[in-house]
Amino acid sequence: MTIYFEDFKAGHTWELGSYTLTEESIIEFARQFDPQYFHTDPLKAKESVFGGLVASGWQTLGIYMKLLVNNLINRTASLGSPGMEEIRFLNPVRPGDTLTLSYTLLEVRPSSSRPNMGIARFKGELFNQRREQVLRVVGTGFFGRKPEE
Amino acid sequence: MTIYFEDFKAGHTWELGSYTLTEESIIEFARQFDPQYFHTDPLKAKESVFGGLVASGWQTLGIYMKLLVNNLINRTASLGSPGMEEIRFLNPVRPGDTLTLSYTLLEVRPSSSRPNMGIARFKGELFNQRREQVLRVVGTGFFGRKPEE
Repeated sequence: MTIYFEDFKAGHTWELGSYTLTEESIIEFARQFDPQYFHTDPLKAKESVFGGLVASGWQTLGIYMKLLVNNLINRTASLGSPGMEEIRFLNPVRPGDTLTLSYTLLEVRPSSSRPNMGIARFKGELFNQRREQVLRVVGTGFFGRKPEE
Repeated sequence: MTIYFEDFKAGHTWELGSYTLTEESIIEFARQFDPQYFHTDPLKAKESVFGGLVASGWQTLGIYMKLLVNNLINRTASLGSPGMEEIRFLNPVRPGDTLTLSYTLLEVRPSSSRPNMGIARFKGELFNQRREQVLRVVGTGFFGRKPEE
C-alpha cells in the first residue's frame, strides 16, 4: 500500500534499520568517490587527525539514503528532493561500525504551485553501536497526494 | 607541493574538470544507494515526473567529490570536513550528461581552538554541457597550516 503525503504526520519518527561497514567497503567507496588517504590507506591513516581509517562522509550519506529508500521511501509516492539545508558529520565512522537510522518528519505542507504534490521537511540521524551520533541531515522531500476515490 | 591553508584566497575559483554519466553508471549507483524507480528503471522512469531516467542526487554529489578530491583536495593538507550548510539539486542529471565542476572559496579563517588548522567555507557548482546548473553545495573544510620554516 502506497504511503501518500496525507499519511505523513509532523513529529513522527521511524527507526529504519542498520548497516555495518567493513574496511573493504570503506576503501572501495573512497577509491571511487573520495580518495583521500585517511579513507583509502589504513597504515597512513594512523598518522592522520583521525588516528586510523575513517569512512568518507559521502559513504555515510550513501548508507543513510540506502536505509531510507529501502525501508521507507520505496513504499511512498516519492517525487524526489530539491535538496538539503544541513549535513553534519558529527563523529568519525570506522571499520566495523554499525549505523542505525532514525528519521523524523519536522513539518508537512501542501505545495502551493503543484496541487498533486506535498512537501515534507525532515531530519535524518545515524547513530553508531555506542549510540554516538555520526550524521545529521535536514532536508526536504516531495510526495504525491492521495488520489481522490 | 602541498597546498596549505595560507595558500587559499577568498574569492578564488578553480575549474576542476568534467565527468560524463552513462545510463549503466546511473542504474548501478542507484541500485546500491538510492533504488527509486526513476533512478533504476528506464522504462518506468518515463512515467515519472522526470519523464525519463535521472541520476540520484547522491551520485551527483559523489561526482562532485571525485572531481574535487582528485583535482584539488589531494594536493592540499586536507583535514576533513564538519559538514555542509546547503545542497541543492537544481536540474535533473540524465544519461550522457557531462558535468563540470567550478569551486569557489567564500571565506577563510584560522581556527581559534586548533592553532595548526584553518577553516575554509566554499561553494561548489556542477554545470551540464548546456551550462545549466545541476548542483550547488555550500560547506566547510579544514586544512593544515603551513609549517614554520
